Amino acid sequence: VNLVLIEATEIDGAGNARLSGARADHIERVLHVVPGQTVRIGVIDGPRGTAIVTSIDGGAVVLQCALEREIPARPAIDLLLAVPRPKVMRRLWAQIAALGVGRIILTNAEKVERNYFDTHILAPETFRPLLIEGLQQARDTRLPEVSIHRQFKILIEDQLDELCASSQRVVADPSAERSLTEVVQTGARERVLLAIGPEGGWNGFELGLLGAHGFQVIGMGPRTLRTDTACVALLALCGAALSGPQSRG
Amino acid sequence: VNLVLIEATEIDGAGNARLSGARADHIERVLHVVPGQTVRIGVIDGPRGTAIVTSIDGGAVVLQCALEREIPARPAIDLLLAVPRPKVMRRLWAQIAALGVGRIILTNAEKVERNYFDTHILAPETFRPLLIEGLQQARDTRLPEVSIHRQFKILIEDQLDELCASSQRVVADPSAERSLTEVVQTGARERVLLAIGPEGGWNGFELGLLGAHGFQVIGMGPRTLRTDTACVALLALCGAALSGPQSRG
Repeated sequence: VNLVLIEATEIDGAGNARLSGARADHIERVLHVVPGQTVRIGVIDGPRGTAIVTSIDGGAVVLQCALEREIPARPAIDLLLAVPRPKVMRRLWAQIAALGVGRIILTNAEKVERNYFDTHILAPETFRPLLIEGLQQARDTRLPEVSIHRQFKILIEDQLDELCASSQRVVADPSAERSLTEVVQTGARERVLLAIGPEGGWNGFELGLLGAHGFQVIGMGPRTLRTDTACVALLALCGAALSGPQSRG
Repeated sequence: VNLVLIEATEIDGAGNARLSGARADHIERVLHVVPGQTVRIGVIDGPRGTAIVTSIDGGAVVLQCALEREIPARPAIDLLLAVPRPKVMRRLWAQIAALGVGRIILTNAEKVERNYFDTHILAPETFRPLLIEGLQQARDTRLPEVSIHRQFKILIEDQLDELCASSQRVVADPSAERSLTEVVQTGARERVLLAIGPEGGWNGFELGLLGAHGFQVIGMGPRTLRTDTACVALLALCGAALSGPQSRG
């Protein structure tokens, strides 16, 4: 943990927050902080800051918080992901949050098994702590918004424009000839919506519908990657493309 | 599995291979192949090809193999990795092999715990099957060479030039101002040696020694990533930089 995240409601009018449980334990036993020392903190969806530990007592840590004025910008990448199997999704939540996305849109697809939707991995009480773990790792405060869609066609045709207005849209598929770096404009300073399919790939209908709704197909070369590896790799490439220099010729 | 990997010694003079165990099981129960059908195969460190399944009997699958002439090129990236904790290393083997590296050099560092070296995760009988799993996913045959070094200074000063001659060398560190994409020359068509430190980072001595041996420091922006996420992200960025167009201005 490189930043201890706190809910805005946990800080009182005088700037004090009283933490117990895992965070208090982490401050005391992993960071080895004693009263009088400071820790880096952040308010979920709010500013970062520092806090002086004013007391540690019976498993509770009291912090005196000093917050920055600015709230970190929301990451400029949104992720449209066909729900992977639960074991993979469990690993992905924190990694996606650490890499930085504004919105996670989970969708059905032909090759998504139906029971993937019924798992507790897709319940907010499971994934929210995992997202927060990723944010604390990456020193970010902006919690990705998550929505889950069981009907791919309705999502793409009726809901996506509202969820992700004016984004550059790309979809990963082995059939593609162009790489993400060639398609996503470096330094474009706009949002990118990145679609990643199920383990067996999107089917023809799904790729067609995505194409009809503005998604450009991008590839990752001849190596086929597992969903979780592809997800991390593509988010990293996307982030680098967005933060890269406008031209490098 | 997108490619079933076979040891060269498993194929007889007439091009037949008899598989049992996990691979036979996979061909029969996951790929649902029946006699007369073909599967994509590869020989470890040899060519890819196809094989006709000539019989399936009592858990054994017999293949008639037809191999290509060319052996896939060895991936142009080598990885110097401070040994992460066993749970993370277990997850990384297959992912590293899938992303494609020629050589994996595992090293000690100040912030690597000593007992990480005594785990069975670093034993060939554990990691070789995981590397093969990654290759089968990525349709590659070139098994990364692995070496394990308990003495960082001796590795960098005395052994590295022999292990990785004439590579462009980069080391990931949060202190860096330049990104991997800026440092690794796109289309350079040479090898890159990528160094990734322990969870707490390289210490000053280690960074200094790497710098003195040709490593340029590269960063990943303000977000600090876990070793496994950073590893996948940086290997993807490195791969993209090496396969990218020479100039794009």
